[in-house]
Amino acid sequence: MARLVLKFGGTSVADLERIRTVARHVKREVDAGHEVAVVVSAMSGKTNELVAWCREASPMHDAREYDAVVASGEQVTSGLLAITLQGMGVDARSWQGWQIPLKTDASHGSARIESIDAEKLVGRMSGSETGTPQVAVIAGFQGISPDGRIATLGRGGSDTSAVAIAAAVGADRCDIYTDVDGVYTTDPRVASKATRMDKIAFEEMLEMASLGAKVLQVRSVELAMVHGVRVFVRSSFDDPEAPELATDTPVGTLICDEEEIMEEQVVTGIAFSRDEAQISLRRVKDRPGVAASVFGPLAEAGINVDMIVQIISADGATTDITFTLPEGDYDRAVGILEHPESGIEFDALNGSKDVVKVSVIGIGMRSHAGVAADAFKALSEKNINIRAITTSEIKISVLIDAAYTELAVRTLHSLYGLDAA
Amino acid sequence: MARLVLKFGGTSVADLERIRTVARHVKREVDAGHEVAVVVSAMSGKTNELVAWCREASPMHDAREYDAVVASGEQVTSGLLAITLQGMGVDARSWQGWQIPLKTDASHGSARIESIDAEKLVGRMSGSETGTPQVAVIAGFQGISPDGRIATLGRGGSDTSAVAIAAAVGADRCDIYTDVDGVYTTDPRVASKATRMDKIAFEEMLEMASLGAKVLQVRSVELAMVHGVRVFVRSSFDDPEAPELATDTPVGTLICDEEEIMEEQVVTGIAFSRDEAQISLRRVKDRPGVAASVFGPLAEAGINVDMIVQIISADGATTDITFTLPEGDYDRAVGILEHPESGIEFDALNGSKDVVKVSVIGIGMRSHAGVAADAFKALSEKNINIRAITTSEIKISVLIDAAYTELAVRTLHSLYGLDAA
Repeated sequence: MARLVLKFGGTSVADLERIRTVARHVKREVDAGHEVAVVVSAMSGKTNELVAWCREASPMHDAREYDAVVASGEQVTSGLLAITLQGMGVDARSWQGWQIPLKTDASHGSARIESIDAEKLVGRMSGSETGTPQVAVIAGFQGISPDGRIATLGRGGSDTSAVAIAAAVGADRCDIYTDVDGVYTTDPRVASKATRMDKIAFEEMLEMASLGAKVLQVRSVELAMVHGVRVFVRSSFDDPEAPELATDTPVGTLICDEEEIMEEQVVTGIAFSRDEAQISLRRVKDRPGVAASVFGPLAEAGINVDMIVQIISADGATTDITFTLPEGDYDRAVGILEHPESGIEFDALNGSKDVVKVSVIGIGMRSHAGVAADAFKALSEKNINIRAITTSEIKISVLIDAAYTELAVRTLHSLYGLDAA
Repeated sequence: MARLVLKFGGTSVADLERIRTVARHVKREVDAGHEVAVVVSAMSGKTNELVAWCREASPMHDAREYDAVVASGEQVTSGLLAITLQGMGVDARSWQGWQIPLKTDASHGSARIESIDAEKLVGRMSGSETGTPQVAVIAGFQGISPDGRIATLGRGGSDTSAVAIAAAVGADRCDIYTDVDGVYTTDPRVASKATRMDKIAFEEMLEMASLGAKVLQVRSVELAMVHGVRVFVRSSFDDPEAPELATDTPVGTLICDEEEIMEEQVVTGIAFSRDEAQISLRRVKDRPGVAASVFGPLAEAGINVDMIVQIISADGATTDITFTLPEGDYDRAVGILEHPESGIEFDALNGSKDVVKVSVIGIGMRSHAGVAADAFKALSEKNINIRAITTSEIKISVLIDAAYTELAVRTLHSLYGLDAA
């Protein structure tokens, strides 16, 4: 017997037929003797419709009203799934964020979870309150703000809801049902030899998600890591009654503490992000605080600068500054830097939107020297020019021309022994 | 300065454009210096869609889950109207039933309002809490049950919400915006000489609504009468900025205490209901408790019996019992009465679904003799056969063949001086 939180996204609950499939997944776990909470998103397309209505009502809409409108999508799905489960003979009830309560801060539209009062929820899930266990069907993506209004957690918030609830109820596992059957060593559309991992450590998954793998929201992985919630990524398209799903080791990828992973490889995966742009400022007049004068105004404009490389000239009088930023912020950043009143003195600004960041990720790097050197050598042998490099304890990122993306990913995937046999 | 509650139904908020029209009506009242609460229904068609989903999910759905799903419609409209008002520069916020809170009993799907805590609502509406008055946009049709779940008030519940909230906040008037411009002396489609009343007493409106006039739900009129809430029925199709709407006496019908009506006519209106059927039991064996043996089983089956006429034969051994009931319950009622184990002994059962109840209503009847006699005479002169009669202090109802509906209504409308000049 385990306590499980299952999360289903918008495409998994897109209509009544798919909601029935979700209910069958839930019933399988209940029949296996588990205590179950389910977190659901809105039917796919519904949230976009509600958001469009808010915009049409007024372009400058109040985030609190936006939340009241948009949160209704999950409310509907939670009720419908509870009804469907009851129709299959499974005791279930829906929970809205404010009923649990799942308390958030006041940042309507992208609220952060502050606390979850799990007492009532656990009482019902375990049956300690009513005598029989009851499936808790929870409207994802939402909670209640300090002033008693509905607050939504922002896009992807249902993953975050699920992990936070798993932490609050002390779940043995949080199953994220999605449109892929797990986390891969890299994107299979780019490298056909990519393989599904059975397990990946929190830190690695965090880097994978931050660096372009889109399986999970970064935020939900952070939360899982902090609270030690074991997250299992699996497919919602599997036949719910398939015998292999009822075993202790269904198909999917477990995101867990590194201690739970017996034989950690040096490199676990290769991630890449196409949403990158590069800006280089040439011969910037070097003086104390020059970096602040460049990056301060960008930060104020809400532009997230990532890789930064600064090279001081031999005479120490000028410096070249190169950095990357999200592609969509490129034009705005150039405008800020070239503004006559910016006070930044440089000879030239070069830039490119046609770049990609490729990252090698693995906890094993901590104890293995030479991982970075191997990567640089392999890329240079393919004549791939490296525009910038950043490293952390468990990852190496290189910025290259976009045209070499596939070649670089496949080269590194093969180099570190990740290719399927 | 007055405190007003405005209520808009589903067709008035069917899309963003109509919601904008509603916002203009609200703005007009705010600009006139009034404190305003608005009660809204779901976009028309939305509730039906949500109800259909619940049925599809499971035919035997849990009423508490049904409520969670269905109440989302009003939640969306309240948020969208608040956003639209803000876009017009009117301070506004949405209120869900559970936020007020509007407390109901546990009869999910058709809950009754138990209490409304109006303190926060009044604080915001009047501006005593925040310094500036704020329009309260309230999701109609819903509240919170004793176990903290969303409860809906059943169909037509938004009228009831509006009147209850008007009572709770001590509103000077509750404006029901609808698709007609007031209450008429009878249905203008049947009698073209029908006229709009400026005022009608609660008791009369209650009879009008009970007896077939569909402008307002009976339940909301009852509530208005008990709490002395002045209800004003007016058109949502008027141009919101029309000069005559900004006056103290806009077009519509005020439902109020009879004391507020200066010159009460003897007869105020003629109502009729086509949803009637008649059953006659011939030569029922008369014995103590025979009425109970007939009507008890019908009541148990939830069948609402209305007019009852019982005539004992000269020898006192048998009796004829005639009564009316809603047309939709006719077949079920016949089945119950003719069941071998019913224990009711009678010679024959005759019945008809082709009957209509026409009613003459007026508080002035209390102090005027001969009103009923005039009606019977006028109908007999037109050769209209009366199948049954019931009277109360302020109304006379007659059951007649459906074919004579229009003739009877026009005859009575003319008889009591209600025809337009």
